[in-house]
Amino acid sequence: MAKILVLHGPNLNLLGVREPEVYGRDTLGDIDAFLVQRAQAAGQELETFQSNAEHALIDRIHQTRLDGTAIILINPGAFTHTSIALRDALAGVAIPFIELHLSNVHAREAFRRHSYLSDIAAGVICGFGPDSYRLALDAALLRLDRSGAAS
Amino acid sequence: MAKILVLHGPNLNLLGVREPEVYGRDTLGDIDAFLVQRAQAAGQELETFQSNAEHALIDRIHQTRLDGTAIILINPGAFTHTSIALRDALAGVAIPFIELHLSNVHAREAFRRHSYLSDIAAGVICGFGPDSYRLALDAALLRLDRSGAAS
Amino acid sequence: MAKILVLHGPNLNLLGVREPEVYGRDTLGDIDAFLVQRAQAAGQELETFQSNAEHALIDRIHQTRLDGTAIILINPGAFTHTSIALRDALAGVAIPFIELHLSNVHAREAFRRHSYLSDIAAGVICGFGPDSYRLALDAALLRLDRSGAAS
Amino acid sequence: MAKILVLHGPNLNLLGVREPEVYGRDTLGDIDAFLVQRAQAAGQELETFQSNAEHALIDRIHQTRLDGTAIILINPGAFTHTSIALRDALAGVAIPFIELHLSNVHAREAFRRHSYLSDIAAGVICGFGPDSYRLALDAALLRLDRSGAAS
Amino acid sequence: MAKILVLHGPNLNLLGVREPEVYGRDTLGDIDAFLVQRAQAAGQELETFQSNAEHALIDRIHQTRLDGTAIILINPGAFTHTSIALRDALAGVAIPFIELHLSNVHAREAFRRHSYLSDIAAGVICGFGPDSYRLALDAALLRLDRSGAAS
Amino acid sequence: MAKILVLHGPNLNLLGVREPEVYGRDTLGDIDAFLVQRAQAAGQELETFQSNAEHALIDRIHQTRLDGTAIILINPGAFTHTSIALRDALAGVAIPFIELHLSNVHAREAFRRHSYLSDIAAGVICGFGPDSYRLALDAALLRLDRSGAAS
Amino acid sequence: MAKILVLHGPNLNLLGVREPEVYGRDTLGDIDAFLVQRAQAAGQELETFQSNAEHALIDRIHQTRLDGTAIILINPGAFTHTSIALRDALAGVAIPFIELHLSNVHAREAFRRHSYLSDIAAGVICGFGPDSYRLALDAALLRLDRSGAAS
Amino acid sequence: MAKILVLHGPNLNLLGVREPEVYGRDTLGDIDAFLVQRAQAAGQELETFQSNAEHALIDRIHQTRLDGTAIILINPGAFTHTSIALRDALAGVAIPFIELHLSNVHAREAFRRHSYLSDIAAGVICGFGPDSYRLALDAALLRLDRSGAAS
Amino acid sequence: MAKILVLHGPNLNLLGVREPEVYGRDTLGDIDAFLVQRAQAAGQELETFQSNAEHALIDRIHQTRLDGTAIILINPGAFTHTSIALRDALAGVAIPFIELHLSNVHAREAFRRHSYLSDIAAGVICGFGPDSYRLALDAALLRLDRSGAAS
Amino acid sequence: MAKILVLHGPNLNLLGVREPEVYGRDTLGDIDAFLVQRAQAAGQELETFQSNAEHALIDRIHQTRLDGTAIILINPGAFTHTSIALRDALAGVAIPFIELHLSNVHAREAFRRHSYLSDIAAGVICGFGPDSYRLALDAALLRLDRSGAAS
Amino acid sequence: MAKILVLHGPNLNLLGVREPEVYGRDTLGDIDAFLVQRAQAAGQELETFQSNAEHALIDRIHQTRLDGTAIILINPGAFTHTSIALRDALAGVAIPFIELHLSNVHAREAFRRHSYLSDIAAGVICGFGPDSYRLALDAALLRLDRSGAAS
Amino acid sequence: MAKILVLHGPNLNLLGVREPEVYGRDTLGDIDAFLVQRAQAAGQELETFQSNAEHALIDRIHQTRLDGTAIILINPGAFTHTSIALRDALAGVAIPFIELHLSNVHAREAFRRHSYLSDIAAGVICGFGPDSYRLALDAALLRLDRSGAAS
Repeated sequence: MAKILVLHGPNLNLLGVREPEVYGRDTLGDIDAFLVQRAQAAGQELETFQSNAEHALIDRIHQTRLDGTAIILINPGAFTHTSIALRDALAGVAIPFIELHLSNVHAREAFRRHSYLSDIAAGVICGFGPDSYRLALDAALLRLDRSGAAS
Repeated sequence: MAKILVLHGPNLNLLGVREPEVYGRDTLGDIDAFLVQRAQAAGQELETFQSNAEHALIDRIHQTRLDGTAIILINPGAFTHTSIALRDALAGVAIPFIELHLSNVHAREAFRRHSYLSDIAAGVICGFGPDSYRLALDAALLRLDRSGAAS
Repeated sequence: MAKILVLHGPNLNLLGVREPEVYGRDTLGDIDAFLVQRAQAAGQELETFQSNAEHALIDRIHQTRLDGTAIILINPGAFTHTSIALRDALAGVAIPFIELHLSNVHAREAFRRHSYLSDIAAGVICGFGPDSYRLALDAALLRLDRSGAAS
Repeated sequence: MAKILVLHGPNLNLLGVREPEVYGRDTLGDIDAFLVQRAQAAGQELETFQSNAEHALIDRIHQTRLDGTAIILINPGAFTHTSIALRDALAGVAIPFIELHLSNVHAREAFRRHSYLSDIAAGVICGFGPDSYRLALDAALLRLDRSGAAS
Repeated sequence: MAKILVLHGPNLNLLGVREPEVYGRDTLGDIDAFLVQRAQAAGQELETFQSNAEHALIDRIHQTRLDGTAIILINPGAFTHTSIALRDALAGVAIPFIELHLSNVHAREAFRRHSYLSDIAAGVICGFGPDSYRLALDAALLRLDRSGAAS
Repeated sequence: MAKILVLHGPNLNLLGVREPEVYGRDTLGDIDAFLVQRAQAAGQELETFQSNAEHALIDRIHQTRLDGTAIILINPGAFTHTSIALRDALAGVAIPFIELHLSNVHAREAFRRHSYLSDIAAGVICGFGPDSYRLALDAALLRLDRSGAAS
Repeated sequence: MAKILVLHGPNLNLLGVREPEVYGRDTLGDIDAFLVQRAQAAGQELETFQSNAEHALIDRIHQTRLDGTAIILINPGAFTHTSIALRDALAGVAIPFIELHLSNVHAREAFRRHSYLSDIAAGVICGFGPDSYRLALDAALLRLDRSGAAS
Repeated sequence: MAKILVLHGPNLNLLGVREPEVYGRDTLGDIDAFLVQRAQAAGQELETFQSNAEHALIDRIHQTRLDGTAIILINPGAFTHTSIALRDALAGVAIPFIELHLSNVHAREAFRRHSYLSDIAAGVICGFGPDSYRLALDAALLRLDRSGAAS
Repeated sequence: MAKILVLHGPNLNLLGVREPEVYGRDTLGDIDAFLVQRAQAAGQELETFQSNAEHALIDRIHQTRLDGTAIILINPGAFTHTSIALRDALAGVAIPFIELHLSNVHAREAFRRHSYLSDIAAGVICGFGPDSYRLALDAALLRLDRSGAAS
Repeated sequence: MAKILVLHGPNLNLLGVREPEVYGRDTLGDIDAFLVQRAQAAGQELETFQSNAEHALIDRIHQTRLDGTAIILINPGAFTHTSIALRDALAGVAIPFIELHLSNVHAREAFRRHSYLSDIAAGVICGFGPDSYRLALDAALLRLDRSGAAS
Repeated sequence: MAKILVLHGPNLNLLGVREPEVYGRDTLGDIDAFLVQRAQAAGQELETFQSNAEHALIDRIHQTRLDGTAIILINPGAFTHTSIALRDALAGVAIPFIELHLSNVHAREAFRRHSYLSDIAAGVICGFGPDSYRLALDAALLRLDRSGAAS
Repeated sequence: MAKILVLHGPNLNLLGVREPEVYGRDTLGDIDAFLVQRAQAAGQELETFQSNAEHALIDRIHQTRLDGTAIILINPGAFTHTSIALRDALAGVAIPFIELHLSNVHAREAFRRHSYLSDIAAGVICGFGPDSYRLALDAALLRLDRSGAAS
């Protein structure tokens, strides 16, 4: 059984409340519950973590070096475009990660088109609302499956 | 039963042959067969089309206005970065489409970071090899499911 | 009697159908018929050609060297912004041409503000819907009139 | 009977004298006379105004709010590229306007390629010498005709 | 008693008429009257001047060297972004000035984000509609108060 | 009685100590006391919060969704130029806010000229030292007054 | 006897008063008197004109077509960097001109490094204070001398 | 005996006709005949192909994977600057290629200075008119010679 | 005896673990112990602090105003390129600081070439691995020595 | 009697030979002789030096610290645009210098518009052919005269 | 018999030693000998010159005006990207020259993509290792042959 | 015993004389003597070389291939920003080098922020005045020590 870590960046605790016409009406709790269940159904363990603090996300990433995390799903929110420290943390632990976004970042402000994470990510998914998480999880499961990391 | 069109852009006929360390060893035939089968299993119809010619892709897109296509999956290949005509064709028929790439375009040459399609796409997926197609299809099926377009 | 060639670029076959709020409700057939008739009324011959294929437009331009075309009207569509080959074809045959656009390209996406044709065109007209063609034809007729090319 | 205002920007009083190989030999008086007559023939009233002063053009535009002007033709000359105040004046009175240029601005210095007016203009015409005015007038007449503003 | 000069740039004479959804419904006369009264209430003298002509604004600024003006409030309108001559005039008389705008210039066209005046202004206020003038006046009164310029 | 929240960004706890020739000699405590008193005098409630931590500011902004805050005054300090997360937090709670700066950011390093907040702010005030807070509060009070939010 | 026209742009009427540490203490009257005398001593006629109004400078340039001006000296002040209309006026009358500046424009703000006049000027002189005028006059006299325009 | 493929891009069928002062008077037939003969004299086989269609060039490049082509000479014409698909086709078949141009692209329009092919080419030759082909062939023959691919 | 503060930015707690081929195998503990000892040997006191949190670093910098710190050595890690708040903190306490990096930032991604700290640093050292700390300490000791701050 | 040094940069030894339509027909010897004579007539000493070698010019500049040079005239030729070492040499000896060019650098290639010397020069003169030297000498003589450095 | 001059720029004396995987193992002596012999076989005279000094190359170019050189081959090495003085020397003597490079400059650092010589060269060849010289010589011989300069 | 070469670029012979407030009062002789002595104390040999000529520095670098130099310290002065030839020389001999600067280049003109050497240097030190040399030497000695190159 492999361990999957799902990270939610700043303001995602507002999910379901903040600008629902852009981000949808599911709360973060709904999404987390769905992901845990879907990972379990696939025979894998999944943990989630949200923070508005860059350092908390970095610290959580650092822990993966010791807790057997096999792959990370990260929706970095606004940190996508501003945090090199997050990039360095992900590169530092050297665990593959998938970057995902609820909204289509290409259809929004110009500054959302650049990501400090994408070029070192395993893959990138954006624009499908909460389904972005589900698709990213499926991508992770397929990858674990192929690498024999699954039970 | 909804109709899904999968479009493959230039050089994708070389798949499985061209730079396999970048694009993987599955041929386009393998991928097409998998997608048709997976769509059928979900109760949908799926058709595929590949061309190295921009105009052939445009013509195929124009046909969707008459053949009941509900959603398009497109791997535009190199046209991603150069074809405004393809963008205009997709915008012209006004059918939702998902953009996908086999490789992680963010990890390659700088000119591959700009897409003329992304900002009008429903969503974008890249970097998962042939799984990019699978994930895009699942995204399409979820969307069809929600909009009640499925049988 | 001089010969006038009218070229329509990619996606213009959708005219009257595609985004009518931007491009109007006249079909390309309506416009072509109107132009042929107006040219005839002025004692000139007018031929039209549409293609979604860059090479077909280039080939048609090359033919003008042999078929007595005195002036070209071209709505290059998306090729305006991407096709240096079209520019080279027009420069190669050295026949004066007028560039026209249905929509006001300056009021749309930033990438529509640059044209590979404008600096070698005789003149440019944009933003008048189907009237852009009519005005371009009148400009051509005035020019032919002055150069004594008319019957 | 609708009222059409024709505005000529700085240095256009030199027309017919200044760089005739670029701008042609017609004087501004010739052009104005032609336009007045052509508008009358179409059953419309046309007035012209030239100034080298930005504020005089702005003041004249402001007057259109009170004098029943239905459409403006403007050859902004050098102000095209430098006057946001002119743009604000035109936007402020909210009367549709057509931008026109004698020369092909795209074939000249790079700084002539940007216009502060084009994106809020109804349409743009350039490169036809004095015929640019005639074509712009015809475009205006067509527009008035369609909107039923003509007598 | 200190003298305060309020300068209104081009098109501000249209205030209350032009694009009221952007600029509000107060006329310039209303605003001027309010400012004169509020300054008087604070024991100061206030004079206003509007022009669509850059040179008239420059001339008015030059006069401040002789008429005892202690501070200038200026809403430069479109000249904000294009007039170095206005900047030079303000720097030349060396009287402190406050730059203000009715609308939030940061939320409009990109070219409105640069000001030729801001870096030499005492302070900048924008986005509060006619209240921008009131706040700027209060800022001026506070400043005069502190420097002991008040009666 | 409406609630006004005043947010102070990083390093503003040094106020009165740090570079007094740039930022003045009032401490943050002095300013906060003045603002609370002035708001009360106007019949409103005002609360202040300072943090050097981006996440603490974000968390405080999120609380406004539940504590009846009607308007926010924010001096984002250095986060003005780097924090998209702060922008997202403010956009997420959808409460109007006024951006203010003690110094004239336009007269300092080039990187201080861009703000990630200004285009979604209600208004922006800078350059008046501690008076920037006072003016921003007055702007807020005027706004509350007009919208009838005051007691 | 040839006629020399000296043009002074905006704010130069402040000369000797405005920022004397940058521009020196000679008034414009002093300079004009010196130039007239020096030209006369060389057997030429010299006239001067200052305006803060762009249109007044343009009108004065237009007059040279009729008044026998052989060469123009112009200190365009702030219009150097913003007025294409002035450039067009000078190009339109096709009389050679020398561009001069009191201060060293290269040692000031970045926006003063670009001139809309320099590339069509006969020559450019800057940085010598009032001597810039004297040197420009000498350059003009040498030129007239060589072309035999002198008496 | 090695096989050499010579590809001619768009508009090169006009060679000898189009802008002869730029491109020379040899027709493409003349050049092809010369190249075939020179290759044969060196004991190698040479085939040529011209098309105005990007896809036809791509298809021809794809065929080289099966027909024993050892090296490609390509004059991509206007596609040099716009076709990433052509680049991908050449990279996909992984056969070394030499890029050549008749004219000196560095001495023409700025947009001709960037090539999507040069950085993956074996070498680049430009500016020698039809001799560019001859030199490229000689470079290919030298390369074949060294790698022992020749008979 | 002077006090020296050594600050380590985000992810430096991973030192000796993260990408050892780039950053070397010494742990942060090893480095800190070495620095404390070397400072003591030179008769100075040295304290170290690491945090992944920007605000914690800012708070620690603020403390130096009260704890007698004479000089700061800072390896800002990723904050080098993104944190203006850190810059403001260092400028605010007005204590000289030396910027250092383990790796040669000029040989890595382009975004690592810009530092928000370098232009206000006393000096910068990069590329020597853990020796960068040693050299920075020696530079600090030399500076203290010269200013007579040493015991 | 003050000493004036005239420096000629690379390729100026070709003067009178190289591109005479751009640079005129006077040789460098002619110009040097004229300058020596004119300086003597004004009671000053003038020395000239030409080199194609950057280091020789730098060495010559360094000598001025010992040989009593009061002012330098420099035509840096191509080094204008590329030599920071020359800039540093001139700044290092701290002797005022005048930059001059024969041709109008603003009317030539874009790369000639930037000078590494202009912003630290006393003044700049260009476009008057050999008269540029004469005018620069006169400027130097005026300056010496005013500072009382003349005999 | 025509004279051909071959110029080698800085560091080319290291050829065969420096980075052989990039530049090959032939020494400059080997190449020079080969070129002299090949030119002689074609009935022409060929001389070579290498220098690390820009001025020595310039001086050698100047000599060609007197020694009957008919054409120059130049491998400018690093001066390609930095020396306008070399450009001016080549333009000054007005002898046609061919620019060549051993390596493919387009496949290396971005700063090697710009050449100060290419736009005034007769032609450019790069990427063929020592064969670049051979091909450039053949190009020169063909040119001499055609112009009848050969014996 | 390893050999260390210290290179001083252009204008460094002025050290102690030129702009002492920027570069300090030590002469180059003082620095060289100090470095030789310190290297000897560490059991290593150190040689120094200064030149204002790029080619002399290149030649000296080339000699290191034969004279047993183990490491180079280089203060490239102005050549830092302009000399690709120096970069190529250093890359060509493939001996590790340390780049150093007396002043903090990040705190000066923008053009001093780019170095053609830094990305291939072993490390970079700047801003410590003459101590920059001492620190660079210590870094070199540490490196030699570790690689066992010392006696």
